[in-house]
Amino acid sequence: MNQALKVVIAQLNYHTGNFDFNTHKIIQEINKAKSNGADLVVFSELCVCGYPPRDFLEFDDFVEQCNKAVEQIAMHCVGIHAIVGAPARNPVKEGKSLYNAAFVLGEQKIQQVIYKTLLPNYDIFDEYRYFEPNRSFKLVEINGCKIALTICEDLWNTDEHPLYVIRPMDELIKLNPHCIINIAASPFHMHQANVRKKVLSENVNRYHLPLIYVNHIGAQTQLIFDGGSLALNKNNEVITAFPYFKEHSEVVEIKFDADTDIISNHSNLSSVNNNLNTTISLIHDALVLGIKEYFHKQGFKQAILGLSGGIDSAVVLVLAARALGTENVRAVLLPSAYSSDHSIDDAKQLAERLKIRYDIIPIENTYQSFNTTLAEQFAGTSFNIAEENLQSRTRGVILMALSNKFGYILLNTSNKSELAVGYGTLYGDMCGGLSVIGDLYKTEVYELANFINDEQEIIPVNTIQKAPSAELRPNQKDADSLPDYALLDAILKHYIEERKSPKQIIDAGFEQALVNKVLRLVNINEWKRIQSPPVLRVSAKAFGPGRRMPIVAKYLN
Amino acid sequence: MNQALKVVIAQLNYHTGNFDFNTHKIIQEINKAKSNGADLVVFSELCVCGYPPRDFLEFDDFVEQCNKAVEQIAMHCVGIHAIVGAPARNPVKEGKSLYNAAFVLGEQKIQQVIYKTLLPNYDIFDEYRYFEPNRSFKLVEINGCKIALTICEDLWNTDEHPLYVIRPMDELIKLNPHCIINIAASPFHMHQANVRKKVLSENVNRYHLPLIYVNHIGAQTQLIFDGGSLALNKNNEVITAFPYFKEHSEVVEIKFDADTDIISNHSNLSSVNNNLNTTISLIHDALVLGIKEYFHKQGFKQAILGLSGGIDSAVVLVLAARALGTENVRAVLLPSAYSSDHSIDDAKQLAERLKIRYDIIPIENTYQSFNTTLAEQFAGTSFNIAEENLQSRTRGVILMALSNKFGYILLNTSNKSELAVGYGTLYGDMCGGLSVIGDLYKTEVYELANFINDEQEIIPVNTIQKAPSAELRPNQKDADSLPDYALLDAILKHYIEERKSPKQIIDAGFEQALVNKVLRLVNINEWKRIQSPPVLRVSAKAFGPGRRMPIVAKYLN
Repeated sequence: MNQALKVVIAQLNYHTGNFDFNTHKIIQEINKAKSNGADLVVFSELCVCGYPPRDFLEFDDFVEQCNKAVEQIAMHCVGIHAIVGAPARNPVKEGKSLYNAAFVLGEQKIQQVIYKTLLPNYDIFDEYRYFEPNRSFKLVEINGCKIALTICEDLWNTDEHPLYVIRPMDELIKLNPHCIINIAASPFHMHQANVRKKVLSENVNRYHLPLIYVNHIGAQTQLIFDGGSLALNKNNEVITAFPYFKEHSEVVEIKFDADTDIISNHSNLSSVNNNLNTTISLIHDALVLGIKEYFHKQGFKQAILGLSGGIDSAVVLVLAARALGTENVRAVLLPSAYSSDHSIDDAKQLAERLKIRYDIIPIENTYQSFNTTLAEQFAGTSFNIAEENLQSRTRGVILMALSNKFGYILLNTSNKSELAVGYGTLYGDMCGGLSVIGDLYKTEVYELANFINDEQEIIPVNTIQKAPSAELRPNQKDADSLPDYALLDAILKHYIEERKSPKQIIDAGFEQALVNKVLRLVNINEWKRIQSPPVLRVSAKAFGPGRRMPIVAKYLN
Repeated sequence: MNQALKVVIAQLNYHTGNFDFNTHKIIQEINKAKSNGADLVVFSELCVCGYPPRDFLEFDDFVEQCNKAVEQIAMHCVGIHAIVGAPARNPVKEGKSLYNAAFVLGEQKIQQVIYKTLLPNYDIFDEYRYFEPNRSFKLVEINGCKIALTICEDLWNTDEHPLYVIRPMDELIKLNPHCIINIAASPFHMHQANVRKKVLSENVNRYHLPLIYVNHIGAQTQLIFDGGSLALNKNNEVITAFPYFKEHSEVVEIKFDADTDIISNHSNLSSVNNNLNTTISLIHDALVLGIKEYFHKQGFKQAILGLSGGIDSAVVLVLAARALGTENVRAVLLPSAYSSDHSIDDAKQLAERLKIRYDIIPIENTYQSFNTTLAEQFAGTSFNIAEENLQSRTRGVILMALSNKFGYILLNTSNKSELAVGYGTLYGDMCGGLSVIGDLYKTEVYELANFINDEQEIIPVNTIQKAPSAELRPNQKDADSLPDYALLDAILKHYIEERKSPKQIIDAGFEQALVNKVLRLVNINEWKRIQSPPVLRVSAKAFGPGRRMPIVAKYLN
């Protein structure tokens, strides 16, 4: 009797709601695995419909299409098994109408269905919005191998942060499984890879079982999935560690004879060494993938953006060029009377270095036309934020006109620091289909610029070294209105990422008046952020669906 | 022994995070009740912090302020009891860190804490994001009266839609309570009043107990709370029905001798007769309150809006004037070369009738300045959506300039039909701090206009009767791009409100090509809607936090 199971880990990229595409890709992978003599192919959580399907799950037709796709995939499981993630209808009337399920397919049938027990419902996760939690536990048996099949969060009820009152593996271990398989849809953030390895290792240590973890890659608007699928043997050694941000599949073998464990058939394991990735390189790769996917999954090819000569638009331009190809990116310089010469020069230099098409479109005439049009209403008032915003909005309108005329998507260049304190113009520099660096504090934008320039100067040094300025009035500097970014970002992280109180932040060594001012700015600018473009998420607490704040509240403001 | 409990139902308006304001208001009500000889005052769910506090609940300092406020309120409970809603820390490490709780206060102490069992997590609700569900059941006893104290959703696990696997009252009834008290934070939608009465009546019928239901009023950005607090005796007769959209408090008496029931001390019960409200009048009152609260709770007084002569901006102007006072609303007419004379006349007539200040600011010069500025880039192209949007965005920039200069909030005038199909210009007519009628289909906007004109013509008849037009090209009509609104809205309701499949909608009698076109338009315009202003919610499925759709998905598009 064969006491081993050859398992293909399939780390693929799915498209939400695109059932033909996903189904075809899954079936292809099954056929390939079969021809390679595999016993089982494991795909990721909700791969059949893409993750997250969000409120499409409330559409019965959408669920029906999932069901049909699963049946279609099952038809291709002859002499091989597959595990795919899809929603399953709750057979009883009480409770939510769906389960988040793993379907075990074999012999052209659905052989077993396993439901997810722990439903993440925090940050960007809304799973209890759709799914009933599982309450009964059983193993999956394939060719004699007894598998504790779990779905993502099921392994994440850690000792450190026990968000749930039960731990599914505590139930499953009683049934004596040979191994753990976890199918996941676990989005990237800059520290996620380490957290993930730690949590998976904890499970191996606790249950003394080998573990296969299957994540997917790709991006769904804000959420970027990094893959990083893993197999760990029962000694917690990494049998294979998949690449980040790339489709990849690979065979491992689960031995379940006397000495149950997991091994790899590959000799070149060390070829994929994720430890080489630094945090900033992961952020870089995540953003490039995030841009690429936003365009590709909507059928767009070309981007446009305003290039100011400042660091934010410079970094976005480089990322866009890497994601879409230089030939698919168009830069627009939009100087005003307050633009400095160096800004235009720096912007031109960058565009020329990257061989990116750029236009110079001065905004002065239109800006003055607005002033003339408003002369009667503005009579007797002084130049203030209204005129500053007029310039920024004139730029926004020009960029959107080019976007509409030629079918570009406008990339937004706001950073997290300015989104946090409202230092940006709604309908002006806050325009765009996608915010590329809206989850990077200004200090992190500098880090990314330096990373980009690591081997050779791509972004002009002057762009990195000069004092940041919005250039909306003579000799304006960000530092006129805001504290130094190192200081600002430190306070923002305490408040936004760590949810600390004013007192805690002051106790950490920051000046009281400044802390109160910054926290107030964060809270009174929710009305602006709610209208900002979707932000590519690279931190554990990004603006967008992961941070849901009231607008009309009065707390710290 | 006194076998009766005099209970004040306090239907008040709270401000999220404004602990001083909420606490002061609650204490005042307790003092008033005490001087009127009441035994108990019941306030609504999470009244101490305001509802919904959203992610402020993740801030320990915020929760700490809730705790302190509850303690402060308790100090005022001498010779009287109070029930207030506030978050309570979960005493154990496992599970979410908070409960959604009802605090029973008396003798200057927290005497008992009851946790919410059923946590709504659908549509606009996210309660499992923050709260652990209750799993143990006990009654509250005040002066010998045994109360089944429940929190909102706890009574809502109906036979028709059993979203949960347990029903808290099935446990509490075993403990032989004298009555049910339910504290709620139940937001308005146009059919909610009837649903609520039905659900509460079902509970009275099922458990044969009198019931007191306490809701709050006011608005928190998108969500409008209508009040409508109720007391039902055990024969399911309405003992008191509170007004909608108004603060109100009133005493009822729970008799718990041999013949347990609830009675009122008032003889003028029929003075508050909610049955006089039609659906359209409720919508009207909800929107007026929603505007008022959005301004008032942020410390703003004055609104500005673009008045086109069309029905949408006309209706918004009337609602704004009623909410804020005519002296606090400023209208701007922004004619272009494509504006018809009647549009300007209709707009002027409405502003003059309402005695609202208006400016006429032609956009032609600035629009032409944009065209000149873009001449080189646009050379060889024909007038298309880019030029149409340029006009709309020029208007948006002018309105925002006035908003920034003088401190007005810009009111958005988009309706639900155009938001649904993307028939609007992002950063143009989609600008604004608040979308007033974004949850009303175009046909409902007409209904509301006719309701406003019911007693006398306020909105010019021509505005209501003429064919809708964006007036962005010569002789343009909405009907050039869209089906008749009656037809469009019917299809949209099938899809958005009822989540029907294309096949179901076609089977209901709509043309296949049209259904496919409309559903596709809804799905491909998510990227625009995600950047639209918050929409006052008056339906059971509004755009905004109650409808969470993917952007880059490929489903029906």
